[in-house]
Amino acid sequence: MITIDPPVLVPRAETPHTIAGLPLAAWTRAIRPSTIQEMLGLMGRPGVISFALGLPAPELFPVDEYARAADRVLFGDLDALQYRPASREIKEHIAGLMASRGVTVRPEQVFLTTAAQQALSLLARVLLPPGGTVICDELVYMGFQQVVEPYAPRMLTVTSSLESGMDVDAVRAHLESGERPAFIYCVTDGHNPLGCSVSPEGRRALVELAREFRVPIVEDDAYGLLHFGNPELPLRALDDEWVLYVGSFSKVLAPGFRVGWIIAPEALVPVLGCAKDGADLDSGTFSQRLVSKYLDSGHFPRHLATIRAAYQRRRDVMIEEIRRHFPAGTRYSTPRNGALVWVELPRALDAAALLRPALEAGVAFVPGSAFAVPGSTAGRNCMRLNFSYPSADNIREGIARLGQVIRNAA
Amino acid sequence: MITIDPPVLVPRAETPHTIAGLPLAAWTRAIRPSTIQEMLGLMGRPGVISFALGLPAPELFPVDEYARAADRVLFGDLDALQYRPASREIKEHIAGLMASRGVTVRPEQVFLTTAAQQALSLLARVLLPPGGTVICDELVYMGFQQVVEPYAPRMLTVTSSLESGMDVDAVRAHLESGERPAFIYCVTDGHNPLGCSVSPEGRRALVELAREFRVPIVEDDAYGLLHFGNPELPLRALDDEWVLYVGSFSKVLAPGFRVGWIIAPEALVPVLGCAKDGADLDSGTFSQRLVSKYLDSGHFPRHLATIRAAYQRRRDVMIEEIRRHFPAGTRYSTPRNGALVWVELPRALDAAALLRPALEAGVAFVPGSAFAVPGSTAGRNCMRLNFSYPSADNIREGIARLGQVIRNAA
Repeated sequence: MITIDPPVLVPRAETPHTIAGLPLAAWTRAIRPSTIQEMLGLMGRPGVISFALGLPAPELFPVDEYARAADRVLFGDLDALQYRPASREIKEHIAGLMASRGVTVRPEQVFLTTAAQQALSLLARVLLPPGGTVICDELVYMGFQQVVEPYAPRMLTVTSSLESGMDVDAVRAHLESGERPAFIYCVTDGHNPLGCSVSPEGRRALVELAREFRVPIVEDDAYGLLHFGNPELPLRALDDEWVLYVGSFSKVLAPGFRVGWIIAPEALVPVLGCAKDGADLDSGTFSQRLVSKYLDSGHFPRHLATIRAAYQRRRDVMIEEIRRHFPAGTRYSTPRNGALVWVELPRALDAAALLRPALEAGVAFVPGSAFAVPGSTAGRNCMRLNFSYPSADNIREGIARLGQVIRNAA
Repeated sequence: MITIDPPVLVPRAETPHTIAGLPLAAWTRAIRPSTIQEMLGLMGRPGVISFALGLPAPELFPVDEYARAADRVLFGDLDALQYRPASREIKEHIAGLMASRGVTVRPEQVFLTTAAQQALSLLARVLLPPGGTVICDELVYMGFQQVVEPYAPRMLTVTSSLESGMDVDAVRAHLESGERPAFIYCVTDGHNPLGCSVSPEGRRALVELAREFRVPIVEDDAYGLLHFGNPELPLRALDDEWVLYVGSFSKVLAPGFRVGWIIAPEALVPVLGCAKDGADLDSGTFSQRLVSKYLDSGHFPRHLATIRAAYQRRRDVMIEEIRRHFPAGTRYSTPRNGALVWVELPRALDAAALLRPALEAGVAFVPGSAFAVPGSTAGRNCMRLNFSYPSADNIREGIARLGQVIRNAA
């Protein structure tokens, strides 16, 4: 558990940070060319099996259905191409999906966003004052760090266990010490990068803390619909006052549509609309209408069943191969949601140092340290592996290659 | 010319601003239910002729071509649905369009955005420190005000003339007094809301000021491709170091695609990528690929010629009818770009007070005061009228109705 002090904002008049001669806002000073980003660029090379990005399986996209939906939008509803509010229809569809997650909402509480990333960005803008405080995992989705960075927040961190998710006692300790963060960030199911889920007791305890200390929770449920077996209820099902919920079609339909949503108290919706106006205009998009027409077709439940079964199988293959090829003492999560397995190698190993030989051996992953908040050394011996994109055969071959790379380094 | 002091940020611990019980960031306190927004909501009623929003003419959308492009994406390129960088192809298309505006750029200088609104939002994030300073028009695009609002900036304003655009001498006076704004915001052609363009001398003087005082200009050219007759060169054609250029397909293809771009020095592109990652992920979108495939088809020059001719005709009809129906002493812009006419009624008239009777008479517009920066009373006797959306017949009927409403009030 660590605390990060806010970066010092250097007044521009004294020492402007310039790029190409242009004086820039101080936060841009922190942007550094990253070796990891550089190597991620290499992984598109032919022959490289990628466990790196959280991509859906492209061969399972229902493109015929998408094409029919596109035609229905283009030839049926010219409003879809204009500046227009998000449609009532898609809000009703989302309310229906939320019911399948055990959450009761009215369409008026659904706010459409340019996918989950924008949902997080808008919630931060609305909740987080400059220099404010957030509680989040020490190992946390990189996109969340990019969302809060411009506010130079104090980040109070907690750890998560691979078995039971967020350490709720640590959250309580922060709050009992007098901290009143702008919000707690929680990926309840299919944690990115850890692949874990919060235990049922943890969920109840978290919403009780939120109520007791009057602190909002931003629940990122981007992987919630992608569950294997019986899902637990999300936090939003347990509390409709303090939990602000983020959902997305990126993992279950396609990232390229960029359609996600926030579930919020109805009174907050106009505030979110104002924030979205500034960001990219609060207007329904063509792809939002396309998704709505696709949902009209009734095909989605079948598609969801298909990808759940396919990803569960790939998860099982990946874990089987990790057990076969990785060294004794390796720990890993067994995700009940999502697309990501977290692997903890024996302590002596530095996963970042394995990335170059892995790429040379034709396999890519993201080193765990890439997810650590600034100042933390967590995740050094860890890797995040995606199992939704590669085929079962590629998973077998890729994990075997990775096992060899690890054995060579050990 | 007025100066707005930055709003005082109230520390949250003392007096939190809450909505639905949730403590929010201080800037949300400034959000007020707006009578104008409320009435804008009424204008969708049947029978109301709307001059209010800057919408393209839906009957001119080339939907057959869009449907073919959608099919080419869905059946030809599954990457289009994934998280992937913006494609080289669309950057090359945009470099070609920029050449038609007299601007020489390489594809590496093109950064794709979720339309022009996000382009402005990202440039503000990169250039504007909290509490920083900007120079802009006293009457300015509302979306620009929403972009800068969270930074609580000092806004140094200048006026624009309907004949020659931005008062460059006033810009010079600010800079000579020692001000060093983060940037100057300039809509060089087809000004929103004023419908004016900066004179050729004004353009040259502006870029000279930018160089002399080392202050960037954000040039918003959302209406640049929509010109009637011989266009002037945008600022970016006169300077490739200090001018950051914003373009968009919203006005020339469709707003619902949400595809725009920034032209920036190549070294700034990774910084914009980082800002976009935080906002909604720097990833190519389905509609971006669709636009690219549409541009491949070679249809765009014909479409552009069609809408330029149609909108020029509608502009001419609108101005003819204003001359016929509006009172003596009325002034108006004659736009050489875009979709908006600005009307200055005789001083005694309050345009906001005319909106309700206008809606009752079946015609909608936006009162000029809606565009004034906070604290300014500019635009009180003015209205912004859109001529791209209504048909020529509806323009005749709508302006006649509006003339009657004005006569009743005078």
